[in-house]
Amino acid sequence: MSSLLDAKDTMDLFSYQSLAQRIFDDVRELSFDGVGVTRESYGEGESATADYLTELAKSEGLEVQTDRAANLIFSPPGLSDKPAVWVGSHIDSVPQGGNFDGLAGVVAGLLCQIARRREGVDVPIRTVAFRGEESAWFGKAYMGSSALLGKLSQADLELTHRNTGQTLAHYMEQVGADIAAIQRGDMLVDMSKVKAYLELHIEQGPVMVARGLPVAVVSGIRGNIRHNRIECVGDAQHSGVVPRWLRHDAMFSVADLIMRLDEHWRVLLERGTDLVVTTGIVQTDPAEHSISRIPGRVRFSFEARSKSMDTLEAFYQLMKAECAAISRERGVRFDFDRRVVSAPATMDAQICDVLAQACKGRDTAFEVIPSGAGHDASLFANAGIPSGMLFVRNQHGSHNPNEAMEIHDFMLGVQVLSDALDHLH
Amino acid sequence: MSSLLDAKDTMDLFSYQSLAQRIFDDVRELSFDGVGVTRESYGEGESATADYLTELAKSEGLEVQTDRAANLIFSPPGLSDKPAVWVGSHIDSVPQGGNFDGLAGVVAGLLCQIARRREGVDVPIRTVAFRGEESAWFGKAYMGSSALLGKLSQADLELTHRNTGQTLAHYMEQVGADIAAIQRGDMLVDMSKVKAYLELHIEQGPVMVARGLPVAVVSGIRGNIRHNRIECVGDAQHSGVVPRWLRHDAMFSVADLIMRLDEHWRVLLERGTDLVVTTGIVQTDPAEHSISRIPGRVRFSFEARSKSMDTLEAFYQLMKAECAAISRERGVRFDFDRRVVSAPATMDAQICDVLAQACKGRDTAFEVIPSGAGHDASLFANAGIPSGMLFVRNQHGSHNPNEAMEIHDFMLGVQVLSDALDHLH
Repeated sequence: MSSLLDAKDTMDLFSYQSLAQRIFDDVRELSFDGVGVTRESYGEGESATADYLTELAKSEGLEVQTDRAANLIFSPPGLSDKPAVWVGSHIDSVPQGGNFDGLAGVVAGLLCQIARRREGVDVPIRTVAFRGEESAWFGKAYMGSSALLGKLSQADLELTHRNTGQTLAHYMEQVGADIAAIQRGDMLVDMSKVKAYLELHIEQGPVMVARGLPVAVVSGIRGNIRHNRIECVGDAQHSGVVPRWLRHDAMFSVADLIMRLDEHWRVLLERGTDLVVTTGIVQTDPAEHSISRIPGRVRFSFEARSKSMDTLEAFYQLMKAECAAISRERGVRFDFDRRVVSAPATMDAQICDVLAQACKGRDTAFEVIPSGAGHDASLFANAGIPSGMLFVRNQHGSHNPNEAMEIHDFMLGVQVLSDALDHLH
Repeated sequence: MSSLLDAKDTMDLFSYQSLAQRIFDDVRELSFDGVGVTRESYGEGESATADYLTELAKSEGLEVQTDRAANLIFSPPGLSDKPAVWVGSHIDSVPQGGNFDGLAGVVAGLLCQIARRREGVDVPIRTVAFRGEESAWFGKAYMGSSALLGKLSQADLELTHRNTGQTLAHYMEQVGADIAAIQRGDMLVDMSKVKAYLELHIEQGPVMVARGLPVAVVSGIRGNIRHNRIECVGDAQHSGVVPRWLRHDAMFSVADLIMRLDEHWRVLLERGTDLVVTTGIVQTDPAEHSISRIPGRVRFSFEARSKSMDTLEAFYQLMKAECAAISRERGVRFDFDRRVVSAPATMDAQICDVLAQACKGRDTAFEVIPSGAGHDASLFANAGIPSGMLFVRNQHGSHNPNEAMEIHDFMLGVQVLSDALDHLH
């Protein structure tokens, strides 16, 4: 691998800004819903985007295939089945979402290929545009990349659409996926021909804006351990008549648990542990709660995220231990539903280094940060493919119509990606 | 006031146990709903109970009147408008409630009068059977006693029934109340003719069972300060992408508040302060909450109860101060709805002493304890009438069909009440 500090010999991607802007504008227009964009997984806006990008790529002389999960794969002419570095992201969106979540990474890959095509430098790079990455529609994320990697289960295929109630299998079949192959768990790609996987994505949190970083190298993608529903069961009683020493208050117990977890979290962060703790749902029972009633039941969710599976396991056990302690102290019990685990993924150290060198070569401020949100790259990394991610700064968060990536930041990201590709293919 | 330690000369009420049992059984039967009893305020079960007690009292030679709020007043013949000690409680119940909440106090008063009638000892005692004490039906407690004392406002009269939507005024009119007089805030009784007010009631909490007390003297009735709805407003974001230092988590903030209040409460109890703190309702917003979303809005209720108005005010200000501190620390804000205050009431020291002496005269274990729940007696006390309450032990709490008072405990309570009346009328 040659040094990237001297960027003179690399492709100039900054000159593709107007093309990039045009693609973003066109795709926004074809998927605009009056508020934001809606590119439903295996649905209308996603398919319209796929068709648009197919036409664009073909007009630039690229070859376009679909895999058996209906994802799009863009290749230089004549690459055939030779090994290649893959660049990719997804083309679906949440309802009333922003235009850049997913699309930015696909456009970045395409720009890198278009630039090389226009300059007659055909190199072994493919861009993959995944369908079905967002969990908003079927309650499951990474459907397209999971299917590609033989990881979409029969139970997943039976998940139903939030609005229509039709199955995921039905929707995937509609856009041409080979459901039988997916059901068998076939690898839909020869993994020995995937040399590496790179993904550019907008940052979905506020860190890069807060720290003034136009780009960042992603060190890893957090996994999570979740309970959709834990129930704390105490004893519902008239609030006025039970003294503190005889109370079994489910709400005080849940508040106690949350504060203990918050304190452990604070301390672990100070020790440098990567961890996020969230209780997104808390509810006393509307059928029986009242202002003057000690809550007898409180239902709540639990989520811990970390890039370390050890941290997740340790924090999970800590949570269980605190539940046991609170149960003893407050005379309640905690009932748990099925624990759901998504494994963390670590980005390849060598690819991270290439990306970092590429950032330095373009004299840009950057940091190496973890990704709190999940991405298709985690599937590739956990399938043994050396993987890397580059984040681009984005305002106003994500999964909302106010998402706002500056085109200059994007072009810097594309340039860094292109520079890195020169040293990976 | 003569010594009560020698009980030889007093009425023997224990021999009225079978009559007491029959009344309880009959009233349970006429208001049984398949699960517990339902004696709707100003409704069917309450009126059936009123009719039953009227017949019973008349058959024992007592006079029965209704006041202009449709409460029943039982008097010995010939008492006319002479001053008297009042004994009373209420005859309505919550839906699927227990048989003894309220009814026990009315039956106790009637038994004291029936015993005197049968033995030809007519003394100036009246029993009042209030309608409309339970807040379950119209969201307001003490309607019958409030109306009697000129304290039922026009806004109260416009409250609507939880099931039918008809107004309280409509319901009261149906059973014969003089709405115009109530609207004017007229005193419906000449208070100079009420020498004292005594109320026997089941204990609605577990204290007396836990401490092995068949009866207890009530020192005071707690007041409360409430907010039906406080909203904590933070910033809803994807849980994975916002680091702890940039979070504005409404749920962690509410948990923090609850734990601070719990700690203050614990310390205040250790100092001997009378206080109860409850958060009966807590809800993340179902329209936007999810496992992987930092809650942006949490709604919750607040209730503090104490027999001291100073304690209530001080604790309320402490709560507001903690909200302000949490707002600064966690970057959230708390929005409050209208504060609702019910004043505490202190029972008359001399009457408490008479009741305590009566307990000692019957060689029973007893304690002087505060009432956490509200009772009609608080209205009389706050209207300047010397008032007292006697609690009778009751299993399984109250406001539920499992309420279970032992008849032996009840008869002891009636005997103590009767002994006390001998020294008050």
